[in-house]
Order: sequence, then structure tokens, then C-alpha cells
Amino acid sequence: MSWNRVAVVGGGLIRFGELFDQSYEQMAHGAFAAAVSSVDKGFDPHQVEAAIVATQRGTLWGQEGIGGNTVPSAIGLAGVPCTRVENACPSGSDAFRIGAMVVASGVHDVVLVIGVEKMRDKSTDEGLLSRAASGHPIYNRAETAPVLFAPFATRHMHEFGTTREMLASVAVKNHHNGTLDPYAHFQSEITVDQVLASPPVCHPLHLLDCCPQTDGAAAVILVNAERAREFTDKPVWVAGFGVATDHPYLHEKSTFTGLPVTTLAAERAYQMAGVGPNQIDMAEVHDCFTITEILDIEDLGFIEKGKGGVASLEGETAIGGRIPVNPSGGLLSKGHPIGATGVAQITECYWQLRGEVGERQVELRHGNALQHNVGGRGSGVSVVNILTTNNP
Amino acid sequence: MSWNRVAVVGGGLIRFGELFDQSYEQMAHGAFAAAVSSVDKGFDPHQVEAAIVATQRGTLWGQEGIGGNTVPSAIGLAGVPCTRVENACPSGSDAFRIGAMVVASGVHDVVLVIGVEKMRDKSTDEGLLSRAASGHPIYNRAETAPVLFAPFATRHMHEFGTTREMLASVAVKNHHNGTLDPYAHFQSEITVDQVLASPPVCHPLHLLDCCPQTDGAAAVILVNAERAREFTDKPVWVAGFGVATDHPYLHEKSTFTGLPVTTLAAERAYQMAGVGPNQIDMAEVHDCFTITEILDIEDLGFIEKGKGGVASLEGETAIGGRIPVNPSGGLLSKGHPIGATGVAQITECYWQLRGEVGERQVELRHGNALQHNVGGRGSGVSVVNILTTNNP
Repeated sequence: MSWNRVAVVGGGLIRFGELFDQSYEQMAHGAFAAAVSSVDKGFDPHQVEAAIVATQRGTLWGQEGIGGNTVPSAIGLAGVPCTRVENACPSGSDAFRIGAMVVASGVHDVVLVIGVEKMRDKSTDEGLLSRAASGHPIYNRAETAPVLFAPFATRHMHEFGTTREMLASVAVKNHHNGTLDPYAHFQSEITVDQVLASPPVCHPLHLLDCCPQTDGAAAVILVNAERAREFTDKPVWVAGFGVATDHPYLHEKSTFTGLPVTTLAAERAYQMAGVGPNQIDMAEVHDCFTITEILDIEDLGFIEKGKGGVASLEGETAIGGRIPVNPSGGLLSKGHPIGATGVAQITECYWQLRGEVGERQVELRHGNALQHNVGGRGSGVSVVNILTTNNP
Repeated sequence: MSWNRVAVVGGGLIRFGELFDQSYEQMAHGAFAAAVSSVDKGFDPHQVEAAIVATQRGTLWGQEGIGGNTVPSAIGLAGVPCTRVENACPSGSDAFRIGAMVVASGVHDVVLVIGVEKMRDKSTDEGLLSRAASGHPIYNRAETAPVLFAPFATRHMHEFGTTREMLASVAVKNHHNGTLDPYAHFQSEITVDQVLASPPVCHPLHLLDCCPQTDGAAAVILVNAERAREFTDKPVWVAGFGVATDHPYLHEKSTFTGLPVTTLAAERAYQMAGVGPNQIDMAEVHDCFTITEILDIEDLGFIEKGKGGVASLEGETAIGGRIPVNPSGGLLSKGHPIGATGVAQITECYWQLRGEVGERQVELRHGNALQHNVGGRGSGVSVVNILTTNNP
């Protein structure tokens, strides 16, 4: 029993990287233009009835952009309703889900979902991630993202025999995939030895176990399923989605060998879509660190708990493997411009399901793709979206 | 032809003020508890299926709260999907609109909309509004909110003969209304002479022409209209809403005698609700400054353009007047905790339409109430929601 009231009919992004030469508004415009030009039967930008903008750091006024409501003017659509959605690292994926519900509500038939983030314009001292480091006013000062994930790696290694080589195999795979993705920040191969020898950040995570800081923007166009054929003969449907929250601080976590927040979000998405993990052809998941992808593929149900490291080392998640994960290069290679990340992952799923990505194309068996982010002090919130080519 | 697929069945807030003794999470919990206990037939908090949280400054991590996704854990609902909506000063009103569309989409039947903002914990130097002052990287440095609205007052006075006494009459009315609202930050009468004699901020706006900085939280419970009678025999329906954006910077404005962004948002809301301004019994509008309320009542269609100052001076917008505006005390007296403001205005409309507010009760003739915010570098975005007691 699928949902399928909403169709994706276009998606595009700008090449991720250090985009000092582009403003927030220029990046948004670039992604919007790419999405518009991707629509098979053409798309007049003024068909957009409402927009949802995902930006994590937008309220830091003066760092370009005061959030979502500057975007319509910047992309030539002043007047159009526009709402900013922020949900930590899953901001983009949650914006997509909210956009789908706006369409399903019947209020708007054509909704633009756009993610945009500038991560590099400010120094580390001034930037977003230094604010993260100030932590909870009482419990957690000076925590950074590697600090939030390293304990999970430590415990996973202790419980299941996961090794640093297994962690490194995730980075090697995703950097390889990045060489096949013209939109990726990094586009060169790395080796396990390079990961192992890279500078330590927070044991057992070294520099190449970590995603970079990246600027980027991505956009998708959602329409009422009944009108999808106006725009394309190859629509992709929103099959389902799920969100879960958890207690946000590390001292409140119930386990360090998995992220229950992802398991719960996935259960909700699978139930809504009427499919299970064995019916997913490919997934774009949240690999902010190598250990995160290993947790993800277990918590999403692709790999048995504890076997994620071995599965990665043995190639099960490679493009030709049993369940291809992050064919786009993932956060580790493509980059993680927070608000844009989820929307770009959705775009990759859209392209994959339409068979449009050339060398990094996965085999399509069931016609379903899954997109996932987790974040919010590490694992305070998780979002899963499932797309499908199976007709309603 | 009304929309009316969604019902409001509960609403509550905490008293607005300088709440140094309450954390962000405590404020959210207080508002949620008030909304829960307001439901006529009782409400189990675990009936909440999803939450939308409005917070403007949430991403300033370390200033308590990293945005919406910490709220479910804090109010005893860890696990529940939660999305933060940010849309400058209309954050709360847009969160309400998004919450209504989530219910209308059929995905969730019971949705909590909660607005919460801490404005006072940081000094002016460190706080949100100092960031606003950094402005556009090129065009607009050092602009603050009074600077964004004073030119409209100047031009309105020039074009229409509006006087400082007329501006002051708005503040006098709203502070009077605040004496009738136990949730208002300020609860004492002021006089026209006091407004005129208060320190100048940005001509012609003086201190008592400006709203204060206030901490606060508010919450409403939305349900599928078909299930409203499970919760109350006196539901209030969401009749319609409208959002518009505009070019965000002052040098791009097409007029300084009105805010076209509000006119457009209102047209959309009236059309969706199937009512006009003459069928509105009361309105909660965005009076961040006295001039703003005068612009609002003209742009929303209550008063002829140019006559807003005279209408205010003559009492047309008082509680017993032709169109009562801001019976809660408005931003000027009740306060403006950004994310909470719109949700608190909705709560006031809900209470007014149910006839529950005692001395500040307006006369109900048509059964419709209107709520409005404008913001985003002054007038980059406007949101209008219309509530009704008229059955679908």
C-alpha cells in the first residue's frame, strides 16, 4: 500500500566545493536553473507555486542570506511563498518531506525544494561549527562532530571486531564513486593506507574518515502526481518517508553500537512505502564519518548488525555490490553542505532511478531508492525518504 | 468555498517576559503543557504524531537549543518527528501554516505547533539582533529594525498627514489591551504624552513606538477536521492562509506607504478562506512598531490606505471598535519572542473565537479571525492565517 501522491519531475545541483566566488543567492540560483533545465518537457520557472528552502546556518545574518525568504527574489520569483526548514544535518531531506506534504495537502501543485549552504566563507573560529563546539550549557562543552561519532566507532570495534581497515574501506569506496560524479567536491582515488596514515582527529577517526566542509546547492521540483505527465514521461514517485527524534546528548544514548533514531525513521518510511530494505536498489546515506555509514547500513536494515564493517570491506556496498551505497561519492567525497546535502542525495536517487548517471549507474531491480540523513548533536534526528518508479 | 480540513483543538502559552529563570526547553514544555490542558475533552500528550517548532535563533548552538529537534525530548516526546520552521518574524505563523498542511496531507492526524524563543539571555552585543545589524554584505550595513520601518513612517506622515499622536495612539491602545491579558510582558497603561516624550530611537519612532525584546513560548494542537469532535465540541477551523515574499532590501522597495507583501499574502488568504476583510471579527497583526500596525490595517484591507492613523486615533481598532486589532496587547505590549509570536497570536484568535477571554473579548459577528506577521529585513515575507468557527 504505497502513498505515491507526489512526483519528482526535476532535479539538479551545482558542483560542490569551496565556492568563495559565489554568493548564497548565486548558489541557490545555480541549483534552481539546473533543476528547471532538467525537466523533460520543459518548465517555466513561474509555475513554481511555493518553495521550501533548507539552510542550516541561514539565521547568521550578514553571512549572506537571512534564511529562506531571500531566495525567491534571488532566483527571479519574488512573491512566491517560501519557508525555511532547518533540521540539523537532515535539513535538506526534511525539506523534501515537508515539500511533499505541501503538495499532498492540495494547497500547491508545484513546489520547489532547494537546499543551499555556505560552509567556507568564515574561518573556523567564526563559523557554524565553532558554535556547535560550545555545546550544551551544562553537559557537553567543546564537543565537535568527530567527538560525537568516535565513541560509536570505538564501541563497534570492541563489540564486533570492526577494524580501522574496514572503516577506511568506506572512505576508499566513496572517494572512488566521487571520481565518477562530476558534482563531487573531491574527485580522486584514495587508498586504505592513505586513510590509515592520515592525521588522527579523534581516535579511531583520522582525517580521511571525516567528510570535508563544502559549499553547495541542490534543487528538486515536486508536483501533484496527477499532473506529473505534464512535465515528464519518466516521473519518480515519493513512496514514503519517516522521521524520528532521540534524546540529543551523548550521556542520554541507550547504545553506542547503533543509532536507534535511524532504525525508527526507517521503520516509518518502509511502512509508509510498503517496501522493505531488500527491495531497495540503492541508497544515499549519511556518511559524515566512515563509522556513520557502517552504522547506517546496519540500522537501515541492509546489513546485519555488527557486519557493516566486513560488508564494506568485501564490496557489498560498492556500485556493483549487493546494495550500492553512496554512488554519488557520499558526504566523504561529494561533500556535506548541510542544507544542500539531502536535496542532492534525492537528486542522485532521482537520476539513478531514471538510469541517467552513466558509469556510476546501479542495477535497477525493484525500482526503489532510499535517502537518509542523521544529525542534531550527532544523532538527535534522522530522516529517511524512499523514492520509486513503481506507479501508484 | 472554504478549505476547513484542519481544526485547532487546543492552544496555550506561558507568560511572556524576561525569563532568565527558564531554559529554552522549559519554556517549550510550559507552552506544551498549557496547550494540552486546554483541550476540552482531555488530551494524552502521546497522541501527538508530529511537531513543527518555530524558532528564529535556534541554530546559534550553545545558546540553549540547536533548533527544533531537541524539543520532543524536552517535552517527553522523544521519537516524535519534529521539524523546525524559520521564516524571520513570521516564523510562528508559517509554522502554523506548515502544520496545517501536514495534517491536510493525510500523513499525520494530530500535529503540535510550538513556538519558542529566548531573546534576553545574551547581551545586545552577542545576541541575535546584533547579527541582523551586520546587514547585507554590500548594500545595507548597520541597519536595525527601527531603521527598516522609520522610512515608512516618514513617508506615511508626508503623504497622508499621519502624525506622531496617531502613531502613539496605537501604542496606547495596545498597552491598554495588555493590561487585560495575563500573558502580556507589559501590563500597565501608557499615555500619548508618554509615547511622545520617550527617547527617540530613529525619527519618528521613539522608544514606546517600539516593541520590547521578550522571551516566550506558545503552542497549538491541530487535528484532522474529521476527528475534531474527539477533542472538543467547540473546534476552530483553519479557513485559509497566504504567504508572500518580496525583494528583501530597502533599496528594492516599490513603495514606502505600504507593504505590498502583506497585501499579496492577505489576498491569497482571503481567497482560500472565501471571506473578505469586512467579514473578520478581530485581528492579531504585526505591530513591531506603531507605524507597522497602521500599515497592516491598511494593507490587510480593514482601513482605507492613508486613513490608518486617523482610524487608530479615533478608536476604530480598539476592542469595542469597528475592527478590534491586537486585543492581546500585540507585540508592543505582550512582547515579540520571534518564534512564539505567531503561535501566540493564533492562540489569542482561537480563544477569542471561542469567547473565552473575559474583559478583552471582542464581539463575534462573522466568526472569523485573522492573524498576521511580516518580517525578514523588515518586509521580505508576510504570512496571514484565517481561522473560523463556521463549519466546513
